[in-house]
Amino acid sequence: MKTQSGIDLSSYRSEGFIGRYQRLIKDTVIPYQYSVLCDKAKGAEKSHVIQNFINAAKAVRGEDVGDGFYGMVFQDSDAAKWIEAAAYSLHRFPDKDLEVTVDGLIDIIANAQDEDGYLDTYFTVKDKDKRWKNLLEGHELYCSGHMMEAACAYYEATGKRKLLDVMLKNAAHIYDVFIKQAHEGCPGHPEVELGLMKMYRLTGDKKCLELAEHFINTRGTDPDFFRRERASRDWTVWENNAEDNSYQQSGVPLRQAENATGHAVRAVYLYTAMADLSSQNSDRELFEACRRLWNSITRKQMYITGGIGSTVLGEAFSVDYDLPSDTAYAETCASIGLMFFASRMLENEVRGEYADVMETAFYNTVLAGMQLDGKRFFYVNPLEVVPGISGVSPTHRHDLPERPQWYACACCPPNVARLISSLGKYAYGENGDTAFCHLFAGGSVKFRNGMSFTCKTAYPYGFDVTYDIKKGGRLAVRIPAWSGTYGVKLCGKEISPEIKDGYCYIDVADGDTVALTLDGSPRFAYASTKIPQLSGKTAVCRGPLVYCFEGADNGGDVLSISLVGGGKISAGEYDEALLCGTTKLTVQALRRTAGDSLYSFTAPDTAECEAVAVPYYTWGNRGVNQMRVWMDEKDSPIVRK
Amino acid sequence: MKTQSGIDLSSYRSEGFIGRYQRLIKDTVIPYQYSVLCDKAKGAEKSHVIQNFINAAKAVRGEDVGDGFYGMVFQDSDAAKWIEAAAYSLHRFPDKDLEVTVDGLIDIIANAQDEDGYLDTYFTVKDKDKRWKNLLEGHELYCSGHMMEAACAYYEATGKRKLLDVMLKNAAHIYDVFIKQAHEGCPGHPEVELGLMKMYRLTGDKKCLELAEHFINTRGTDPDFFRRERASRDWTVWENNAEDNSYQQSGVPLRQAENATGHAVRAVYLYTAMADLSSQNSDRELFEACRRLWNSITRKQMYITGGIGSTVLGEAFSVDYDLPSDTAYAETCASIGLMFFASRMLENEVRGEYADVMETAFYNTVLAGMQLDGKRFFYVNPLEVVPGISGVSPTHRHDLPERPQWYACACCPPNVARLISSLGKYAYGENGDTAFCHLFAGGSVKFRNGMSFTCKTAYPYGFDVTYDIKKGGRLAVRIPAWSGTYGVKLCGKEISPEIKDGYCYIDVADGDTVALTLDGSPRFAYASTKIPQLSGKTAVCRGPLVYCFEGADNGGDVLSISLVGGGKISAGEYDEALLCGTTKLTVQALRRTAGDSLYSFTAPDTAECEAVAVPYYTWGNRGVNQMRVWMDEKDSPIVRK
Repeated sequence: MKTQSGIDLSSYRSEGFIGRYQRLIKDTVIPYQYSVLCDKAKGAEKSHVIQNFINAAKAVRGEDVGDGFYGMVFQDSDAAKWIEAAAYSLHRFPDKDLEVTVDGLIDIIANAQDEDGYLDTYFTVKDKDKRWKNLLEGHELYCSGHMMEAACAYYEATGKRKLLDVMLKNAAHIYDVFIKQAHEGCPGHPEVELGLMKMYRLTGDKKCLELAEHFINTRGTDPDFFRRERASRDWTVWENNAEDNSYQQSGVPLRQAENATGHAVRAVYLYTAMADLSSQNSDRELFEACRRLWNSITRKQMYITGGIGSTVLGEAFSVDYDLPSDTAYAETCASIGLMFFASRMLENEVRGEYADVMETAFYNTVLAGMQLDGKRFFYVNPLEVVPGISGVSPTHRHDLPERPQWYACACCPPNVARLISSLGKYAYGENGDTAFCHLFAGGSVKFRNGMSFTCKTAYPYGFDVTYDIKKGGRLAVRIPAWSGTYGVKLCGKEISPEIKDGYCYIDVADGDTVALTLDGSPRFAYASTKIPQLSGKTAVCRGPLVYCFEGADNGGDVLSISLVGGGKISAGEYDEALLCGTTKLTVQALRRTAGDSLYSFTAPDTAECEAVAVPYYTWGNRGVNQMRVWMDEKDSPIVRK
Repeated sequence: MKTQSGIDLSSYRSEGFIGRYQRLIKDTVIPYQYSVLCDKAKGAEKSHVIQNFINAAKAVRGEDVGDGFYGMVFQDSDAAKWIEAAAYSLHRFPDKDLEVTVDGLIDIIANAQDEDGYLDTYFTVKDKDKRWKNLLEGHELYCSGHMMEAACAYYEATGKRKLLDVMLKNAAHIYDVFIKQAHEGCPGHPEVELGLMKMYRLTGDKKCLELAEHFINTRGTDPDFFRRERASRDWTVWENNAEDNSYQQSGVPLRQAENATGHAVRAVYLYTAMADLSSQNSDRELFEACRRLWNSITRKQMYITGGIGSTVLGEAFSVDYDLPSDTAYAETCASIGLMFFASRMLENEVRGEYADVMETAFYNTVLAGMQLDGKRFFYVNPLEVVPGISGVSPTHRHDLPERPQWYACACCPPNVARLISSLGKYAYGENGDTAFCHLFAGGSVKFRNGMSFTCKTAYPYGFDVTYDIKKGGRLAVRIPAWSGTYGVKLCGKEISPEIKDGYCYIDVADGDTVALTLDGSPRFAYASTKIPQLSGKTAVCRGPLVYCFEGADNGGDVLSISLVGGGKISAGEYDEALLCGTTKLTVQALRRTAGDSLYSFTAPDTAECEAVAVPYYTWGNRGVNQMRVWMDEKDSPIVRK
């Protein structure tokens, strides 16, 4: 089963949980982020990104560049990701004012493009002679990739070609440089590869495909490239280690790669493009490499929350089974990239494990990246926070106990916005006559193959999912691996549909109703004993949600709580007023009474208690307090009687 | 009770466990380390320290400096610490050949002293004009301090004054610079203060006392000093952050200090000198500061092994209760410095807690710093090691699973050597008519007050300690806080002596025998629930020894083992052949069977087992394997029936 692809976004009208999030992006996040781009958001770090484009346009015209360039070398990408998010949002929430704003920004961007098609404000403003001379750190191709994604998204949403034409011209320029003139090397930060694939799929432009193939097929074939490039110039943008091929995934030809290594966002953006290309070209060898990399991530290097890249040093994958909770990096963008990778793997082969991971990453790390009001963001997603240590201890400075407003390096907030507003593409897919339901996302959906239905569900807090079929065909619904039991009814009658690789396949006719019931019972999770930090501990989950224990629900102290192994665990009523609507879990637990001394030879007093958990994605929304996902587990004398 | 001081080393003739270690230092460590100093040790990092002195002597004579200076800015101190260790060893093991070697080295060192008394090979060889212009990083005073300690030790051991005269001249030079010429500032790395105090106590030289007072009383009164000093020069030795007053304990006047901060070795060397000065001058205010700093370390920032300075970043104290096992720094030298500090606190007031900590640091972290054969050394002492992660993961690079031979920065190995060979000074003390037994160290001891006895014990593996009194008086023996029960017999008859602040006081006559019986039963230890990494875990101890679980005794895998809370724990027979003589502990435990997946929703199979522990100081002597001090603790269904 292959080459099934995401639906047109305009054909998914979200409701329910996903609907609320998409509305939040539209009402709060997109306007707020635009005000940041314009440097009009109070208290946010300076962006200057729009002014960078304006100043670059002056440089293109040979004029004085005013206050020049400000920000990270990849500042342009903030604008690109914002346009992309806005474009996705326009499908669900048409908005002429927003379109006018985007059109204006696109005009500004178009003016910043050089005559030859080059587009990057950092080098255009600062020094044109340095173009393409620092692929390691320069991020020119990275910024192009993001703008290509934006161009595709905006064209799909509005039919307006201006940015698409700008980026086709940009792609042609890159083609000239890297293919015709055979400029050597590949991007330090992968991203353009997946942007080029999107451009190719949308426009059929062969240069885009050829360029994506070029960057993927040559990467790692010359492990000395970045060192040579570094030696050839006497300047840097930021001091990146040119010889750390592991960091930039450039040490071995990608088709031979065995392990996911290095900067986690770079890795998953690259692997996404590899999977995209392998499905496009039915390239089995490339797909096998993707599968090895997928397994390396999801079977040895992933948090239970779908977080990846466990170490702050290089924002990177560490070694297998090194998954500390307290010093975790687990960047929001990396989990978004993991969703990209998962969705492209699904286009190669429909297997539940890809969608399972996609769902885990979405409902836990990605959503945790944003405050419930859409106004503050986490870049780093630890699985344990202890005020006084987190954000303060030298080794925990990156693990903040509360979300900051905006970052100087603002990759995560707009990434969350574009992911959520395009969720339909991840939730639904199709392949010939089959409609795929990868995620349980309420609302109405139409497929290119003619099928359509309305999905009704209170997911992730309700576990009944109903599909009211308007136009029938073949329906493929994922049965999540976490669901110990499940039931399927067709028009009220229990059926036992064919299950293949985690999906159940049902032929449906117009007017049918398919009702899926998943296992909504809370459950304990256990980690491999190969993970030193987690061996012997337990976590609690319900549906796709990993739960956590916060001080707010537990008398201010979760460190002294142990869960009773195999003890009682129960879900409360859904509380609309709590944390934008959630369900707490209550778990049988024991609390140790702490003495004053660091160490003692007397067993601490232990009392029975109930520990209360909330979904991980909601943590840090009630002020600074302790938070812990993985809990000590003790057997209980009461349970054992 | 105050101003009790360590005995003359020549009056302690060690036997038993301490005797073996002192012999190992004499037979193996001192010769090996000398071969390193001469660059004749195969496989060790280059030292060049003796050649540095030879080359500095050339510079003093105005000759070409040959191959110049090599090594760390504080390379001189390696020679100093070696002389000091050799000197202490000579008390126990007179050795004319060793004396000839030391004399030769002292001649070389003396030749490197400038006419004005300045002594530091780095600046003498490299650039005399830079003297005293980089107190932050230059380590001139640090090297002087160590050479002062060496000079005192060698004079005490042999009566030879040459190095003492060199260092008195050096002290006079420092006095000229910092007192007469009022050169501002204090040393970036404290050490000279305690060296000066030793010089003063030995020689009565008032300049030494005045200098120590000067550096202690002025430190921190001008928190801007290091920044100004940095701004005044256009060169660095290594790039130290001049504005990090916390790192170099220079942010507040020391008398006002509340918390132990920064580089742990710097901290405890400084606090040692403060405590030394407060006892010398009966300076109550200074002593109160020492007490606050002592409590800050031992009640909030110390590992159960007596390790301190938990973070690799700055080799420093972190924040309270941040005591990770796996990424611990816990430098060997810092625990040695903690013993110094404890011993000086005992000179201010006799309280068991000082000696308890001193004992814990010695028997666990300090001894762990050296391989049992005396040939390899740990700088860093983690409480958990997992091959594949430790020493490999970016955040665990410093936590090595086996001891290296010699370090470029070789502070720890010679520090271990001088500590062990001078152990008598820490074990025994006196005050007027009272002989203090702080540590249980077998062998014969004579006190200046005329008392003498022979201590017989198999400690730390036997818990009977007998004192055969030759010359009587008042005996004060510590009762360790860990000893739940104890008994004292005087000439075979049970007595209930006065106990004050952790010591029992007994009047003894010539020919008496005092027999102390301590609690040798193995015991569980528990950590405060304020320590996130340790809450809910348990460790096992016996006597002063913290135990650890190594793969070698536990089927290669300790991560899957949980101890049964309050379960059976038993000590085996003392095994002379094992790890240079040790006793294993066996603990009732459970082993989880690991599945292949990272996470699972099925409770892992758990089977009863026996976990075997060995003393922490012996770990890593049987090849690379897992090691863990703090274990998960589960209640057992069997125990609870």
